[in-house]
Amino acid sequence: MKLSPIVAAGSSLAARHVSSCQPQMPVIDYNAAPPNLSTLANLSLYETWRPKAHILPPFGQIGDPCMHYTDPETGLFHVGWLHSGAAGATTDDLVTYHDINPDGDPFIEAGGINDPIAVFDGSVIPAGIDGKPTLLYTSVSFLPIQWTIAYTRGSEAQSLAVSYDGGHNFSKLEQGPVITDPPFAVNVTGFRDPYVFQNARLDSILGSENETWYVVISGGVHGDGPSQFLYRQYDPGFQYWEYLGQWWHAPANSTWGNGQWAGRWGFNFEVSNIFSLDEEGYNLEGEIFTTFGAEWSLEPIVPQVSDYRDMLWATGSVSLEDGQVTFTPSMAGRLDWGASAYAAAGKVLPASSQASAKSGSPDRFISFVWLTGDFYGTLDFPTAQQNWTGALLLPRELSKGKISNVVDNELSQETGSWKAVSNSSGVVELETLKQVISRETLTALTATDPVIEAGRTLSSPGSVTFEKYPDSKFYVLTANLSFPQSVRGSDLKAGFQILSSVNETTTIYYQFSNESIIIDRTNSSAAAKTTYGIDSRNEAGKLRLFDIVKDGEEQMETLSLTIVVDSAVVEVHANDRFAVSTWIRSWYSASKEIRFFHEGTGSVTFEGVQFYEGLYDAWPDRA
Amino acid sequence: MKLSPIVAAGSSLAARHVSSCQPQMPVIDYNAAPPNLSTLANLSLYETWRPKAHILPPFGQIGDPCMHYTDPETGLFHVGWLHSGAAGATTDDLVTYHDINPDGDPFIEAGGINDPIAVFDGSVIPAGIDGKPTLLYTSVSFLPIQWTIAYTRGSEAQSLAVSYDGGHNFSKLEQGPVITDPPFAVNVTGFRDPYVFQNARLDSILGSENETWYVVISGGVHGDGPSQFLYRQYDPGFQYWEYLGQWWHAPANSTWGNGQWAGRWGFNFEVSNIFSLDEEGYNLEGEIFTTFGAEWSLEPIVPQVSDYRDMLWATGSVSLEDGQVTFTPSMAGRLDWGASAYAAAGKVLPASSQASAKSGSPDRFISFVWLTGDFYGTLDFPTAQQNWTGALLLPRELSKGKISNVVDNELSQETGSWKAVSNSSGVVELETLKQVISRETLTALTATDPVIEAGRTLSSPGSVTFEKYPDSKFYVLTANLSFPQSVRGSDLKAGFQILSSVNETTTIYYQFSNESIIIDRTNSSAAAKTTYGIDSRNEAGKLRLFDIVKDGEEQMETLSLTIVVDSAVVEVHANDRFAVSTWIRSWYSASKEIRFFHEGTGSVTFEGVQFYEGLYDAWPDRA
Repeated sequence: MKLSPIVAAGSSLAARHVSSCQPQMPVIDYNAAPPNLSTLANLSLYETWRPKAHILPPFGQIGDPCMHYTDPETGLFHVGWLHSGAAGATTDDLVTYHDINPDGDPFIEAGGINDPIAVFDGSVIPAGIDGKPTLLYTSVSFLPIQWTIAYTRGSEAQSLAVSYDGGHNFSKLEQGPVITDPPFAVNVTGFRDPYVFQNARLDSILGSENETWYVVISGGVHGDGPSQFLYRQYDPGFQYWEYLGQWWHAPANSTWGNGQWAGRWGFNFEVSNIFSLDEEGYNLEGEIFTTFGAEWSLEPIVPQVSDYRDMLWATGSVSLEDGQVTFTPSMAGRLDWGASAYAAAGKVLPASSQASAKSGSPDRFISFVWLTGDFYGTLDFPTAQQNWTGALLLPRELSKGKISNVVDNELSQETGSWKAVSNSSGVVELETLKQVISRETLTALTATDPVIEAGRTLSSPGSVTFEKYPDSKFYVLTANLSFPQSVRGSDLKAGFQILSSVNETTTIYYQFSNESIIIDRTNSSAAAKTTYGIDSRNEAGKLRLFDIVKDGEEQMETLSLTIVVDSAVVEVHANDRFAVSTWIRSWYSASKEIRFFHEGTGSVTFEGVQFYEGLYDAWPDRA
Repeated sequence: MKLSPIVAAGSSLAARHVSSCQPQMPVIDYNAAPPNLSTLANLSLYETWRPKAHILPPFGQIGDPCMHYTDPETGLFHVGWLHSGAAGATTDDLVTYHDINPDGDPFIEAGGINDPIAVFDGSVIPAGIDGKPTLLYTSVSFLPIQWTIAYTRGSEAQSLAVSYDGGHNFSKLEQGPVITDPPFAVNVTGFRDPYVFQNARLDSILGSENETWYVVISGGVHGDGPSQFLYRQYDPGFQYWEYLGQWWHAPANSTWGNGQWAGRWGFNFEVSNIFSLDEEGYNLEGEIFTTFGAEWSLEPIVPQVSDYRDMLWATGSVSLEDGQVTFTPSMAGRLDWGASAYAAAGKVLPASSQASAKSGSPDRFISFVWLTGDFYGTLDFPTAQQNWTGALLLPRELSKGKISNVVDNELSQETGSWKAVSNSSGVVELETLKQVISRETLTALTATDPVIEAGRTLSSPGSVTFEKYPDSKFYVLTANLSFPQSVRGSDLKAGFQILSSVNETTTIYYQFSNESIIIDRTNSSAAAKTTYGIDSRNEAGKLRLFDIVKDGEEQMETLSLTIVVDSAVVEVHANDRFAVSTWIRSWYSASKEIRFFHEGTGSVTFEGVQFYEGLYDAWPDRA
């Protein structure tokens, strides 16, 4: 998802937020009903919903994460994002971040011959041209671009830029793009977000030299469906990229399985990443995974409106047939079920990086998901009052996940975001994508002493307020919820209410009728009643709780929840394989209660319920 | 040859020449020795050397001719040339021309996303997009570009523009180029001047639909030699052009035959035209010819200096081998031997055009050769004083030429700009490229009563002034010179002196020692002695006078000369197959004498000697 041309071209509406000369703000009363927030002074909402442990620029809009890399010279991991071009920060621990440039200024901007209109996503070869970090990115010459309208030829090309100053600036090569055009005569829906990667399986199948670079470009074909266009490095100078075909193409608007577990393939892919994982993390010779965005709409398709953007992942097999390398998915799912969560971009974080060396971690693949702050520019949020828009979700470690001792029944046999890899006497082991908050990040988030809430079993509808709840809106809540197998298919809903008071509440619950985790935002924010652009639609994501065999008994898998509340940014992680993230813009100071929640028929047992309050400031350098 | 970026980008130094408010000029005395002309006031030399029957803009620089077409809606022939982008004129008779836009303003200019730096040569599909004249031209994004330096990727791409207003403006498509890049990973020396054409032989050999459009792009490969890159129309919208390979590639710096008849193939081709001819003129099914510029230098090659630019033609066979269409030359020559004559661009002039309908002409191929006014920008000519630079040579009709009854001897057997097509009892018929001044043009140039100078035979050195010579420097001189076979290989030189007086003279003669027509400019211009940039180097071109059998006797072919003197533009045409054109910038008013010229041993007989004075004004609309 790309920002509007105005923002992308660097003329962000956002004023610079300079603390030292901040104007005196009228005091806002968070104990009273909010006014229409769009009537407030500029900057007056800057702190209201601002997260502290998440990644976002000092001010202004954040767009797609992209262009991450570990600098081989320093071992620092660079996280990038679109912002008046692209800006970024470095980290040596995946906890705190340091803006690469003062005020979060970009390290590359639109402008000049190749990018007169905008710079879109790119990716970095850490030791590329002259051994320096080398960015391959999308140069934009014409807008609008969207899969719902005719594609203007030449809108998107892929160009190179190199940093010779430790990533402060990426200097565009003084030449034209290196991938100038989509494949010959292909009427694309999009052709952007070049993602560079290495892969032993491709090297082998294609007879490439070891550690050859490949590029996947995301897009699709009008009338035909979404595609990943694959290219191979041709020369040591990265000037030429040999086209290897649409290694993955899906029929337009088709789905994986019945469509319930991985959204739709849609009409156009964006932000595809390709990487290879084993159970420890990243492995050049591991199984190939891809994360990607899929764009689609309900009929009738309205020009320039993409109703849906699904943030998906898939893994599968790679084969070479008739000289054509082909990716065939074997399972797929959602990287995040949040309707505002999109455009994930990850990167290998080598064991040799500063962060991994400190934590003793192996090579990992770390992915950052974007959380749009104004629903892809479609909501008329009081942007000037807040002076920032959007954030990145917490870094996630992706690896090959296992679910062991699963009963071999209809539940495990369905085509979903898992696949059986072994079967013995009625029990299967399932593989899936494991995704968890990065270990250092989670460790730091939970570094305070936990406040423990006694476990309990609820069997009848109602909500029960925690004995203690946080003094702030910054905490991590963890819990394990167990259910008897008898509730499967029932009307039971069970979970928590957070950010709650007499005026506001947000309910996060597992709903058995459709095996979903729901975030009910109907009454999340009093401000939604006075102000446009504060989304109160529910979030929902499917998570199957399998039947597993434990100590010789069948039982339902426990639901393990990790809920991160970082002011208005709320991430709900479950069972190391599920995430749904969203904005919860509670207004009242009092809206800090946490409650157990039960509705419908059946029982739920809560255990290990605790919260860690405070989080941390990810941006120690910022004023 | 392309103009400097400044001129090409439209910031020509030339002021607009508006007669109605022309400043009062000091009177220049053409009866006295000239001062250093660069000390004179701007515009003061505007009329001094300005031709009247030739094509040039009202003021400023003219670059390559290009972008000609006959508008199917009007039958008018449009002649184009580079000039602050590209400008042009229409003609209904190949005699008079009408600027397409006031002041000779361009119909397309550099600027915008595809052409930020310059617009280079292009060519027109007369009924292209929407049935309108559709221009395919080179969009320039980076300079400098020259075969002597590394090629900046993306410097040149091929873009489309369409005229919906009768050619006054060509509107660039609001999209990127349609041929975005040279062939994959080819390190080109140049990639420009797309020339659109149709060809029945290619349709047949490639299995294309009838009247498919092709494009040849001129350039070369670093370290490998010059090339013509061939493309084929792929879609009715002219968006995609299928690459068919380097259908002609010559080894770097190689020659045709011994190199005497067609210069060098050099290192880089420019301005290639492809067309097909029969003996009448243009024929879709005729023999394939190409005209092209070849760039080369003597060792050591100096960066950004191309010593030589040869304006060549070739014909040959076309074959398909292993799926690769290949052009193999069978003869080649020079379209014009003048060192300043280059960058020819021609176009089909259909029988249905207004001009051809009036003259009852068949389909023809009309070519215009550029005559650079400052030797490709390398001479420091008093440009501001003249306020115009360069011209196009008179339109030429190209066709398949025959030389009949040629003795089958060493002279005809050499690999040259001819080839034997039949042989019977020691006599061959030779084919070559016939090129003559367009019939309407020559008819108009010679429409006045000729002044006849008595023929004579000269056998001893000296010059003999004509009894009558022109009152002006605007005339056509024709003559036939016959030589005994005995002078072949001798030191004889015979011809004319023109633009002569006691102070100045220009000698145009045939020199048997090297079978060349020479234009001796050593003493052509008194101004060359006071002013930089007035070239006094000789011009030379090879023309073989074959032995032919006439009435059963062998004799040397007659030398038939047509010399056009249009102020400083002098064109020497010979035997319907030779041209050498140049600038003769005589200064004195008195320099109007014409003289017979003889030097060395042997005799020459002059017959049919006459001149037609006055020429005509090709620009009746201009003030």
